[in-house]
Amino acid sequence: MTYRAAVLGASGYTGAELVRLIATHPEIEIAGLSADRKAGMAMGQVFPHLRHLDLPDLVKIEDLSFEGVDLVFCALPHATSQAVIAELPDDVRVVDLSADFRLRDPEAYERWYGKPHSAPELQKEAVYGLTEFYRDEIKGARLVAGTGCNAATGQYALVPLIREAVIGLDDIIIDLKTGVSGAGRSLKEGLLHAELSEGAHAYSAGGTHRHLGEFDQEFSRIAGREVRVQFTPHLIPANRGILGTIYVSGDAAAVHGALSAAYAGEEFVVVLPFGELPSTRHVRGSNYCHLGVVDDRIPGRATVVVALDNLTKGSSGQALQNANVMLGCEEGTGLRLAPVFP
Amino acid sequence: MTYRAAVLGASGYTGAELVRLIATHPEIEIAGLSADRKAGMAMGQVFPHLRHLDLPDLVKIEDLSFEGVDLVFCALPHATSQAVIAELPDDVRVVDLSADFRLRDPEAYERWYGKPHSAPELQKEAVYGLTEFYRDEIKGARLVAGTGCNAATGQYALVPLIREAVIGLDDIIIDLKTGVSGAGRSLKEGLLHAELSEGAHAYSAGGTHRHLGEFDQEFSRIAGREVRVQFTPHLIPANRGILGTIYVSGDAAAVHGALSAAYAGEEFVVVLPFGELPSTRHVRGSNYCHLGVVDDRIPGRATVVVALDNLTKGSSGQALQNANVMLGCEEGTGLRLAPVFP
Amino acid sequence: MTYRAAVLGASGYTGAELVRLIATHPEIEIAGLSADRKAGMAMGQVFPHLRHLDLPDLVKIEDLSFEGVDLVFCALPHATSQAVIAELPDDVRVVDLSADFRLRDPEAYERWYGKPHSAPELQKEAVYGLTEFYRDEIKGARLVAGTGCNAATGQYALVPLIREAVIGLDDIIIDLKTGVSGAGRSLKEGLLHAELSEGAHAYSAGGTHRHLGEFDQEFSRIAGREVRVQFTPHLIPANRGILGTIYVSGDAAAVHGALSAAYAGEEFVVVLPFGELPSTRHVRGSNYCHLGVVDDRIPGRATVVVALDNLTKGSSGQALQNANVMLGCEEGTGLRLAPVFP
Amino acid sequence: MTYRAAVLGASGYTGAELVRLIATHPEIEIAGLSADRKAGMAMGQVFPHLRHLDLPDLVKIEDLSFEGVDLVFCALPHATSQAVIAELPDDVRVVDLSADFRLRDPEAYERWYGKPHSAPELQKEAVYGLTEFYRDEIKGARLVAGTGCNAATGQYALVPLIREAVIGLDDIIIDLKTGVSGAGRSLKEGLLHAELSEGAHAYSAGGTHRHLGEFDQEFSRIAGREVRVQFTPHLIPANRGILGTIYVSGDAAAVHGALSAAYAGEEFVVVLPFGELPSTRHVRGSNYCHLGVVDDRIPGRATVVVALDNLTKGSSGQALQNANVMLGCEEGTGLRLAPVFP
Repeated sequence: MTYRAAVLGASGYTGAELVRLIATHPEIEIAGLSADRKAGMAMGQVFPHLRHLDLPDLVKIEDLSFEGVDLVFCALPHATSQAVIAELPDDVRVVDLSADFRLRDPEAYERWYGKPHSAPELQKEAVYGLTEFYRDEIKGARLVAGTGCNAATGQYALVPLIREAVIGLDDIIIDLKTGVSGAGRSLKEGLLHAELSEGAHAYSAGGTHRHLGEFDQEFSRIAGREVRVQFTPHLIPANRGILGTIYVSGDAAAVHGALSAAYAGEEFVVVLPFGELPSTRHVRGSNYCHLGVVDDRIPGRATVVVALDNLTKGSSGQALQNANVMLGCEEGTGLRLAPVFP
Repeated sequence: MTYRAAVLGASGYTGAELVRLIATHPEIEIAGLSADRKAGMAMGQVFPHLRHLDLPDLVKIEDLSFEGVDLVFCALPHATSQAVIAELPDDVRVVDLSADFRLRDPEAYERWYGKPHSAPELQKEAVYGLTEFYRDEIKGARLVAGTGCNAATGQYALVPLIREAVIGLDDIIIDLKTGVSGAGRSLKEGLLHAELSEGAHAYSAGGTHRHLGEFDQEFSRIAGREVRVQFTPHLIPANRGILGTIYVSGDAAAVHGALSAAYAGEEFVVVLPFGELPSTRHVRGSNYCHLGVVDDRIPGRATVVVALDNLTKGSSGQALQNANVMLGCEEGTGLRLAPVFP
Repeated sequence: MTYRAAVLGASGYTGAELVRLIATHPEIEIAGLSADRKAGMAMGQVFPHLRHLDLPDLVKIEDLSFEGVDLVFCALPHATSQAVIAELPDDVRVVDLSADFRLRDPEAYERWYGKPHSAPELQKEAVYGLTEFYRDEIKGARLVAGTGCNAATGQYALVPLIREAVIGLDDIIIDLKTGVSGAGRSLKEGLLHAELSEGAHAYSAGGTHRHLGEFDQEFSRIAGREVRVQFTPHLIPANRGILGTIYVSGDAAAVHGALSAAYAGEEFVVVLPFGELPSTRHVRGSNYCHLGVVDDRIPGRATVVVALDNLTKGSSGQALQNANVMLGCEEGTGLRLAPVFP
Repeated sequence: MTYRAAVLGASGYTGAELVRLIATHPEIEIAGLSADRKAGMAMGQVFPHLRHLDLPDLVKIEDLSFEGVDLVFCALPHATSQAVIAELPDDVRVVDLSADFRLRDPEAYERWYGKPHSAPELQKEAVYGLTEFYRDEIKGARLVAGTGCNAATGQYALVPLIREAVIGLDDIIIDLKTGVSGAGRSLKEGLLHAELSEGAHAYSAGGTHRHLGEFDQEFSRIAGREVRVQFTPHLIPANRGILGTIYVSGDAAAVHGALSAAYAGEEFVVVLPFGELPSTRHVRGSNYCHLGVVDDRIPGRATVVVALDNLTKGSSGQALQNANVMLGCEEGTGLRLAPVFP
């Protein structure tokens, strides 16, 4: 059976990545593509790397027909998804890649995003989109909220450790090194090649990055008490990839054991042998997440290092994995592309 | 039906790229992997991006069984393939990725590679591996010689133009900008990140690059007279991709017409609309080749720009395309992965 | 004696590069800095790499006093310099880094830049700013027109060859590989890191790049007849540097001899031994230009390769070299910073 | 007065950086250059970016005359400096850039470097080479031990904080992002462009990096008790620069105050306004170190971010700053080159 999917916001990097992945998915076909400023253009003009594909032209959302569409991937900018999704036909499943439905608490949403949520009833319904942790809920969901790419990175390292109570909850530090595509195709001086290449800097430091809202929500829920982590993202001169270095107190062997057990049956999360550490270059362009653990010369301290591709496992691959679960396709369909190295 | 393939020299970049592509090929499975210095290691240790795959460990060639093997991809260093291939069982088909069988003329081989060929009878038998130009011969071949990546780049732009006689033969200039993976995983000072990044330089200039042997052979054969092109390769700070800028005399519209006609039925060679030019970033990690043509303010001059990924269309993707033809699989099987951008 | 200089348009890359160079110039001090949108900011906010310097804040041009100012570097966008320079006091010397005064012929200006020149009398007066070729005229000049960075690159390779008549004039091809800082600090999608890194492409191909106006003017003047070259610039993933590969007909030894003779007494243009080729990484951040020559297996063909840093020798270093000549400082003052490698 | 300096180990990156800096130093001239494998070559062959300089050829150390030499910069590999320095004439001052004299305790040396020290009496005499902290001792020193580049980075952020007792001593975490030139010009697979670019990874994690020996020694000395920090270095795809993100407990305003007070009179260490964070791109190629402090949403937590260029402030610039102090030159002579951006 072939499912028909529309991609809203197809002129951004996550939209293009969805199309790239769906291109070799045997059970999903692209039924429509929307873009706002680039409506009227062919996808191959906006993204020449997709020019060999037979795709519908970009149109405005209002010109898109949802007749016969089984699933919508909504890759619109934050705060614009809410209204659009509220208007979609009831029988269309939705995977939202924006931040609009990640936080279940309307107050938390308003605090982190600076305005009240316009579709609070949908907010309640949305399932948080980390397949490995919410698989059962995603199966029956109509609306799945794709996670922040940084938020996904930290959670793959920490959720099993908090759940199994093998680490302290009051001194968790998440230091991320992220590629630039996470910032999207937006015209900002700081994203120019001449500004970014051959350099590195921290941004949104000091507990101000919005993905902290997701960490707070998920870690506190699992721990059964409030958990607040320290989190500093850094921009490095690479296009894809997030490397997370996570400092925890706890026994390193127990940490490694908890991760190994948690992901034993998971195809896309790979725990390396104790002492080996991952690299972003080894997951590039793929849906795989690599995790490594080392102990420290300081007793009772462990370091977890996690690597994933922000556009794939951190965003569009994650979205497709959820779509597979929602539609009843085998979960890894279309997602087994090996990483591209070098 | 599933074919069984062995990869000799699997610890280099072209070997790894073959494994990456075969990983999602539905009709080929990896029966064996050889490496010399890295024999005894798991493929996932040598190339951690492939660690999620279930692969045989690396062994020395002499420890590899060819029982039940349908096809061998030989990704050994230049000059070592000859002896190895000569020893393979007769019923095993071979795609060689080295330079050993690209030149049909033993004298030309000796001139460019500095020593006599040790298997001249195999040299005669080998079919030159550009599928689009040698498809019929490849179908029945036992031994196909994969081409130089620079040589492939120039030929996709020029073969149809010479065949259709729409350009002059005495003033062809090929200026290539190539990514560093073409030099392989070799320990040379000039390939260090600190040496290469943020810079560009020409190498093997002045008619000394060995891929000229292939240009001479193929262009002269098609033209029916000796053709000698001028060719300068340059190393740029990118891992994958070759951009060729090719200066010719001739009518630009006729040039564009000849290319469009030649590749009208080809899936993997895409001719852009007249005046549009390709970029290596739009073919990265894929088997697609993009071609563009512009005219010039100087009448009678045209510029052809060609982009491909040296590891895929220029080497391992090309090899797999040939393998598909040799084995009777549909030609594009396993090769339709969309380019990875950004 | 200390000269006082103002920099107009100090918030762009060439403005910042001027300030970087003047920072260690013993005879010039910064008297004023202008910027339009960034007026009111400290230079260290706009360019944190200059934060250790004691500099005047950025102001609008109309708020700048030219009292006691000896020299103005005008680094404004193309087409805005004309009006500004026309209003400057008569006793202030001016080095213009825009394209406004590079072309002496009002018709040529209008053809390449799309509108009539608004200060044609100044256009006549301006001296073309390649110090090595116009040193005597620059000495007495009030207005010197900095050249295009691509135009400078091509001319260092070709001017002596045309002057000495050692090459053919009808088949000159200039293939440039340029770093991205040449495009300035402008917000264009194509200049984003995610778009540019790991790729290469040609732009303004086919005889449409504006720097051709300079080639036409200078080469024809020297040759005493019309000369039209073929020119393709390419963007590569590096911040600084232009590598020019220039294909000519002529005797390679004579070509090398003409270049060696022309630059024998020049401090900043270095001709490498015959057969050695330069690299942009070896001139990065400096005012040096490296030139190399190789012959070809095709008799009568030679290749000249030239490397310079577009922001220094191609723009702001060139401007300072001219300023030294205009002010009577020793020509290389402040310009002997060695290249930064790696 | 002009001092005469020899550089031992001039064929590595720190040797080349020393020559680059000395090239515009008005009071020091290069009296000799040594290299082992590259003896007999001109410096301009080994480092073409220095080809415009008039430099002595590279010779073996034993062929170098120390007659009339005032100072030796010893940029030899670790463990080879000891024997060489022990043989130098007594009246020659020495700045050693290797790790051989950084640790004062012979047992600590043996623990971190795996063999006994061969010149323990010199080890006692050597002064640790962070000018800002050891200026008085350096003035009269004969032997100064240049520090590890990572060690320098961490100390600029932490020494004043430990001295002023504004942070806790038992939960300090140093997370460094370092450019590849710190690894030197060595032929290792992991330093190839194709391996490093577009990726990031941690190395020497878990308390195993040798620069921890310096942290232990200096932090414990200042604190008057044993201090053990957690330290993870990461390799990122940039040539120069180290960005340190340092997590401490303490009042962020007090942290900022202590740093501001400590560096108020220092020319080369710049403390940014509270809340602003540095970037490696803004110190590239220079002797400047930038420091920033932010508080956190978690009370009592602060983050210090520090940026310097590993080859300059972290190594050769530091060495020249010490040489200036030892020779009685003004401390910043030759070191005020502004950073190269972009």
